[in-house]
Amino acid sequence: MIIVMQNTATKEMVDHIVKMVKEHGLKTEVMHGESRVAIGVLGDRTKLEEGNVIRLPGVKEVLKVSKAYKKVSREYKVDDTVVEVAGSVKFGGDNPAVIIAGPCTVETQEQVIEIAHGVKKLGAQMLRGGAFKPRSSPYSFQGHGLDGLKMLKKAGQEVGLPVISEIMSTDYLGDFMEHVDMLQIGARNMQNFDLLKAVSKVKKPVLLKRGMSATVEEFLLAAEYILAGGNDQVVLCERGIRTFEQSTRNILDLNSLALVKEISHLPIIADPSHAAGRYDIVPALGLAGLAVGADGLIIEVHNKPSEALCDGKQSLTFETLEKFMKQAKAFI
Amino acid sequence: MIIVMQNTATKEMVDHIVKMVKEHGLKTEVMHGESRVAIGVLGDRTKLEEGNVIRLPGVKEVLKVSKAYKKVSREYKVDDTVVEVAGSVKFGGDNPAVIIAGPCTVETQEQVIEIAHGVKKLGAQMLRGGAFKPRSSPYSFQGHGLDGLKMLKKAGQEVGLPVISEIMSTDYLGDFMEHVDMLQIGARNMQNFDLLKAVSKVKKPVLLKRGMSATVEEFLLAAEYILAGGNDQVVLCERGIRTFEQSTRNILDLNSLALVKEISHLPIIADPSHAAGRYDIVPALGLAGLAVGADGLIIEVHNKPSEALCDGKQSLTFETLEKFMKQAKAFI
Amino acid sequence: MIIVMQNTATKEMVDHIVKMVKEHGLKTEVMHGESRVAIGVLGDRTKLEEGNVIRLPGVKEVLKVSKAYKKVSREYKVDDTVVEVAGSVKFGGDNPAVIIAGPCTVETQEQVIEIAHGVKKLGAQMLRGGAFKPRSSPYSFQGHGLDGLKMLKKAGQEVGLPVISEIMSTDYLGDFMEHVDMLQIGARNMQNFDLLKAVSKVKKPVLLKRGMSATVEEFLLAAEYILAGGNDQVVLCERGIRTFEQSTRNILDLNSLALVKEISHLPIIADPSHAAGRYDIVPALGLAGLAVGADGLIIEVHNKPSEALCDGKQSLTFETLEKFMKQAKAFI
Amino acid sequence: MIIVMQNTATKEMVDHIVKMVKEHGLKTEVMHGESRVAIGVLGDRTKLEEGNVIRLPGVKEVLKVSKAYKKVSREYKVDDTVVEVAGSVKFGGDNPAVIIAGPCTVETQEQVIEIAHGVKKLGAQMLRGGAFKPRSSPYSFQGHGLDGLKMLKKAGQEVGLPVISEIMSTDYLGDFMEHVDMLQIGARNMQNFDLLKAVSKVKKPVLLKRGMSATVEEFLLAAEYILAGGNDQVVLCERGIRTFEQSTRNILDLNSLALVKEISHLPIIADPSHAAGRYDIVPALGLAGLAVGADGLIIEVHNKPSEALCDGKQSLTFETLEKFMKQAKAFI
Repeated sequence: MIIVMQNTATKEMVDHIVKMVKEHGLKTEVMHGESRVAIGVLGDRTKLEEGNVIRLPGVKEVLKVSKAYKKVSREYKVDDTVVEVAGSVKFGGDNPAVIIAGPCTVETQEQVIEIAHGVKKLGAQMLRGGAFKPRSSPYSFQGHGLDGLKMLKKAGQEVGLPVISEIMSTDYLGDFMEHVDMLQIGARNMQNFDLLKAVSKVKKPVLLKRGMSATVEEFLLAAEYILAGGNDQVVLCERGIRTFEQSTRNILDLNSLALVKEISHLPIIADPSHAAGRYDIVPALGLAGLAVGADGLIIEVHNKPSEALCDGKQSLTFETLEKFMKQAKAFI
Repeated sequence: MIIVMQNTATKEMVDHIVKMVKEHGLKTEVMHGESRVAIGVLGDRTKLEEGNVIRLPGVKEVLKVSKAYKKVSREYKVDDTVVEVAGSVKFGGDNPAVIIAGPCTVETQEQVIEIAHGVKKLGAQMLRGGAFKPRSSPYSFQGHGLDGLKMLKKAGQEVGLPVISEIMSTDYLGDFMEHVDMLQIGARNMQNFDLLKAVSKVKKPVLLKRGMSATVEEFLLAAEYILAGGNDQVVLCERGIRTFEQSTRNILDLNSLALVKEISHLPIIADPSHAAGRYDIVPALGLAGLAVGADGLIIEVHNKPSEALCDGKQSLTFETLEKFMKQAKAFI
Repeated sequence: MIIVMQNTATKEMVDHIVKMVKEHGLKTEVMHGESRVAIGVLGDRTKLEEGNVIRLPGVKEVLKVSKAYKKVSREYKVDDTVVEVAGSVKFGGDNPAVIIAGPCTVETQEQVIEIAHGVKKLGAQMLRGGAFKPRSSPYSFQGHGLDGLKMLKKAGQEVGLPVISEIMSTDYLGDFMEHVDMLQIGARNMQNFDLLKAVSKVKKPVLLKRGMSATVEEFLLAAEYILAGGNDQVVLCERGIRTFEQSTRNILDLNSLALVKEISHLPIIADPSHAAGRYDIVPALGLAGLAVGADGLIIEVHNKPSEALCDGKQSLTFETLEKFMKQAKAFI
Repeated sequence: MIIVMQNTATKEMVDHIVKMVKEHGLKTEVMHGESRVAIGVLGDRTKLEEGNVIRLPGVKEVLKVSKAYKKVSREYKVDDTVVEVAGSVKFGGDNPAVIIAGPCTVETQEQVIEIAHGVKKLGAQMLRGGAFKPRSSPYSFQGHGLDGLKMLKKAGQEVGLPVISEIMSTDYLGDFMEHVDMLQIGARNMQNFDLLKAVSKVKKPVLLKRGMSATVEEFLLAAEYILAGGNDQVVLCERGIRTFEQSTRNILDLNSLALVKEISHLPIIADPSHAAGRYDIVPALGLAGLAVGADGLIIEVHNKPSEALCDGKQSLTFETLEKFMKQAKAFI
């Protein structure tokens, strides 16, 4: 249940309601939006009579939250959440779309620094790079691990870009807290609930990718785990879903991106690289993502795609990124 | 097999090859592109020795067409096909995106005329309207049939817009030839091969919608039926695919739209209305379609969506269409 | 709305209700089940006050049919429908499962006669064979058409098996009525509504295959078209659905088969050949279909699979069919 | 690469080849099957010339393993693997199908003991029960954790059944090693690679469930992680896949179960409860799984389904389990 207060409601009115709700054995959370104050009520709502609440001074309306997710919904918080990374990059609200770029995998210190310079010059605001890689086969390259994280951090510092990398296990949370500016939870771990709970307890923004066959509701509930645990600095990421169609790696689901922007206040970006799986249609999908209102893009870029240890097929070169950034300007 | 000629090849060289191929019991089709002449060879290609062909005067290269589709592919025809409707509307090539708008169903003469005026005023170039409706339930309204076609035609004439309507059966082909400017084959009939063969024999452009779970290859092969029969005036339409995600009616598959633009020379448009199934995200998906390079959009518009006999939930009002057309200008 | 009468209700009571319903401008259909009489009410049910109906003499209960389908549902008709083909073969109810076998395509008179002898000897009760073939590519063999139908009929007569073949267009309905004992509507035509309406008007049993991405509701509604038109001799067929998994051609959906048996009174069989797309797992899927309660199976069998013009990869030999029939005996 | 030895090959011949392969910088693994000895070669196979290997004494043939998975494949090991739990229960090979039964969640000590008695009496060979529950919503009951594990163990000991429970995080591996006889990895964690690696290092059999949209190849590769790490006691579990069809919770994919039995030597069981999501079709799907050759079933059973804390809708009562076990006898 969400109790929405009138514009004219005083602090006393709000306090009175909070006290009353707590007396019924329920928790509250007061949300101060630009346009209104709302009081979220958590717990068994049958304990509270809606008809009684609506008659209290200052109450405008009482919303029943029918969906399983609460804190991620616009019913709970009307205004866009803005997620800030490293004090400089801002996702969501009226901020221009953020471009995150970098290699699939951190291969060498030289490679990641060269790519960092390249993408920064072309307008990227954050640097991505995998250190711990989720690979379908145990025989595929699994990433440089902690060394990779350190190389990524150094590259970011050298060019002045905040960095993001994927965390696969709670075992390394300390290292990630030290070396990256934003934690990425990958598609395969979207419902790794222990990991979600762990990142909900830290003070670091999280990029949460949608699972490849997760419904919108499951996606938002995964984010709800993070918000429920205390971390509201979450950026969502649509990265393509698995369907019957296999001529491209996945299908970028812009229906859901558009829908999420309506039902949630969290920023959401698109990952055209993993959605496409082939470089030639990455720019087109990136533009489509921006057109539909994405708050940013995360794009794989490599200095020598044909020699990449991973995902070379879907990585852009500096040349194609440059061309893309020019086209994208209309939207950013 | 496709025999690509050198820029400097003479007509005699081409004629010589055509004659030789026919002597081997194979059919040919000579394609005059802007940049080159190519000779398509149809039939059992094992009858012809590639090594012999490549040595003939004027031959630049010999392409083996590995995919099941031939005439719809860029290997067969490099340059974009431009499909012209009623001498005025042009799909494909460098032409600006075409907006087709109108009601799901023709309800009354007044209704369709009012909508025709509204959409024409806002910049639509063609009028859509269903007369024969494919409905999942036998108890749903099945459309006004031939009377609906006539009302649509009259509305188109009154405001000066070419019209398009869906044909579901060969029984009515004569009526459609008389009353509409473009034939639409719906998603459920994409593999109604008798219908495809029938429209391949007429002189009228065809809008072919992708089946809701058709692969890109099946989609292109359905178009191949129409081209193989002799009608090369085909516009493709991506209208959303069926997936596990059901928070919106379908998922607009822009991956495939981008891919089709690469592998086929045929124009392709997007249908954000059926992809969305709810009006609120139609404009966003329409912009995304244009951003990815669609040659047009087909959009459901109704003067009174809440009273529509069909699909009111996904129809735009004049007001939202107006707003959308302003945003879309950047892409058209 | 369905009005269920008490066991003790007299004919006068039923007649009285029918008369009353018609006076409200609604249609009725009286169903005499083994265990009860029920009166189906078709039309805008808001015209009839449920509270008034329940008080009429002889009425046991009033069911609101919430689903879009009516006549195919068990709410409408409790007892299993038994569909009889050629006076000898019976699908549904307590009858043992019917095995339909034969080649994908009728190739020559000799081929189909040889196969007919083979499958009859091994226990098949009906002979299948394609004459008009729905092929994704216009360049694939499209079947022998009417000649194929005649060869099939002759083979059936020679060995004494009723025959079934797929009809793709209303144009050939007369020929099918003359030459086959059961009409098959294929997966691609499950929503070819003109075809459904046409077969609803004839006196010939219909095998309706589920579309490859049709929901259970759409499947039942397609059958509803046939029953609504007047033909209640419909056997349903689950033939595999299209999913993300592509290591086999389709996935046999036994969940839906089990569910359909609960919610519909119509017989339903399984097609393990098209579900599998490879012969090696056809027997296992056939057994699974029988275990789940299918009223029959339709299986592709060829005398020389490696030389088949179509679907040789998924056809059983006589040897594997023989082995399968022995295993299947436990279920039939 | 797999080097298959002749039946007559001596130990010396095998040793010679192993030595030679190692000298090329590659690892070997000698597999003693009933019918043959095979030498698996792991590493960059370009280092070894196939033509040279085939000429060595005792070599029958050299197989190139084209798939990404190796150790799980029948190419690597021809004979069925038998997985033994607690010295009494055997999965795979010619052993009769194993029935694992129990509640979705361990609720109280009394509940799980009562259910344990019930299922043991009806023929179940193992007891299941969730202690750590993966729930889509953070507000759903998350299980009793370690206490739940202890209750489960006690119930198993009391009635004499080995127990299995789902492990979601490496943090609790020690507890699971102490309290359960078999580790279960759930669908959501099928690609939690850190968890896979952790269980690959312990001496305890693992039940690995297929992810809800995992391909057969990804499923086998997940198992490959466990075998590659050193634990070859893996039982696979097909539990239904996510498709467009939503009238039941998932679709039991028996195509893949049949296929896996061909391409892998590992035992595979079916989970009709999660595939169905509704109790009424669980028995039918269970029989279908057995008919297709499953090496066992895992079934949710509850003493009072309507009061279950989780998944009551899909749980069988003792009565339905009893009826099912009688029907299942034909297959077990």
